[in-house]
Amino acid sequence: MRRTERSRLHRLPRRGSHDAGTIHAILDAAFLAHVGFAVDGQPFVIPTLYGRDGDRLYLHGSAASRMLTRLAGGVAACVTVTLVDGLVLARSAFHHSMNYRSVVAFGTARAIADPEGKTRALRIISDHLLQGRWDDVRPPTARELKATSVLEFVVDEASAKVREGPPLDDETDYDRAVWAGVLPLRLQAGDPVPDPRLADSVAPPGYLERFASR
Amino acid sequence: MRRTERSRLHRLPRRGSHDAGTIHAILDAAFLAHVGFAVDGQPFVIPTLYGRDGDRLYLHGSAASRMLTRLAGGVAACVTVTLVDGLVLARSAFHHSMNYRSVVAFGTARAIADPEGKTRALRIISDHLLQGRWDDVRPPTARELKATSVLEFVVDEASAKVREGPPLDDETDYDRAVWAGVLPLRLQAGDPVPDPRLADSVAPPGYLERFASR
Repeated sequence: MRRTERSRLHRLPRRGSHDAGTIHAILDAAFLAHVGFAVDGQPFVIPTLYGRDGDRLYLHGSAASRMLTRLAGGVAACVTVTLVDGLVLARSAFHHSMNYRSVVAFGTARAIADPEGKTRALRIISDHLLQGRWDDVRPPTARELKATSVLEFVVDEASAKVREGPPLDDETDYDRAVWAGVLPLRLQAGDPVPDPRLADSVAPPGYLERFASR
Repeated sequence: MRRTERSRLHRLPRRGSHDAGTIHAILDAAFLAHVGFAVDGQPFVIPTLYGRDGDRLYLHGSAASRMLTRLAGGVAACVTVTLVDGLVLARSAFHHSMNYRSVVAFGTARAIADPEGKTRALRIISDHLLQGRWDDVRPPTARELKATSVLEFVVDEASAKVREGPPLDDETDYDRAVWAGVLPLRLQAGDPVPDPRLADSVAPPGYLERFASR
């Protein structure tokens, strides 16, 4: 992937990577992105779901969305994805840290206008979240497609950062009698909560369990 | 809190709020922010930990950090915090959604220069993550404080958005024989992993359990 100053890893480059495999693995493990764009110098950061196909990310939302309208204008954008893996407790305040995997991707977006392209992109987003769901539900109508903006964000440059493992303390601090280590964290699924209007005979589908164990 | 066009809730304003209590509760329940700023029109979105004191957020990092250097210059910034609460599975592709709580805050940052102010802000960040940790560990030295940039981000305007509850389907879709409901999600703590060099006699502190059950 291309590298210029904007994606150069300034801090702790040993934790960083421009490797496409690493970047794609993080993008595939997560599903929420924070999308940044600027309007007259004022930055906006908006959380949104996404799907991935190669170096393209798909975003969607209401046709009335300010974010999607701005992005569709082709402005420079930054899509950041972060997975929190744990709190890192060191013996000194200074060496406390977080275990995480993140991707910062730069590029521009374009609106997908044709209904077939929109439907395909929406399916990619749906499959990214819950593979198998799309075939179970009513597909979008022409009216619904019209009310939905779908963007294709082409990743022009990206970098990944990963921190893992135990704290790294100053040698002189290791004999301190304080607990040190990692508190692992992960986004975990609970038991599915059926809709109040769901018939008792409809069981939760298998892809919910697959999501929970990923 | 102040409201101008940038923080106006365009989409589904019934899900949005400018109420300070709602905004503070979300900021206190989370600990990871995505900070946006623009350099010559190019937006950057960087994940970072934070702490809160009233309408001020504290951020920290290496003195060499590009983000902190830029932000300390007083550029317009956007700090966004998102808590993912669940996947919302509807009977139609169109009505799928996510349950979440998010805050989008606008303002500017300034660097805190004096060591006392820095130490106070670092303690606020530490307390925000793990109340009680700060008193257990070695405090920062003068050299460590020098190597750390600490920013105070004054929230000038902010809005919260919350989606909760079951899917809202079209009336004509309710009789479809497909599972619908919510898959609850939360960031969950696992068992603490002691540092390989930790003495067996040191037990995990109580604040780890309090974090896990929050």
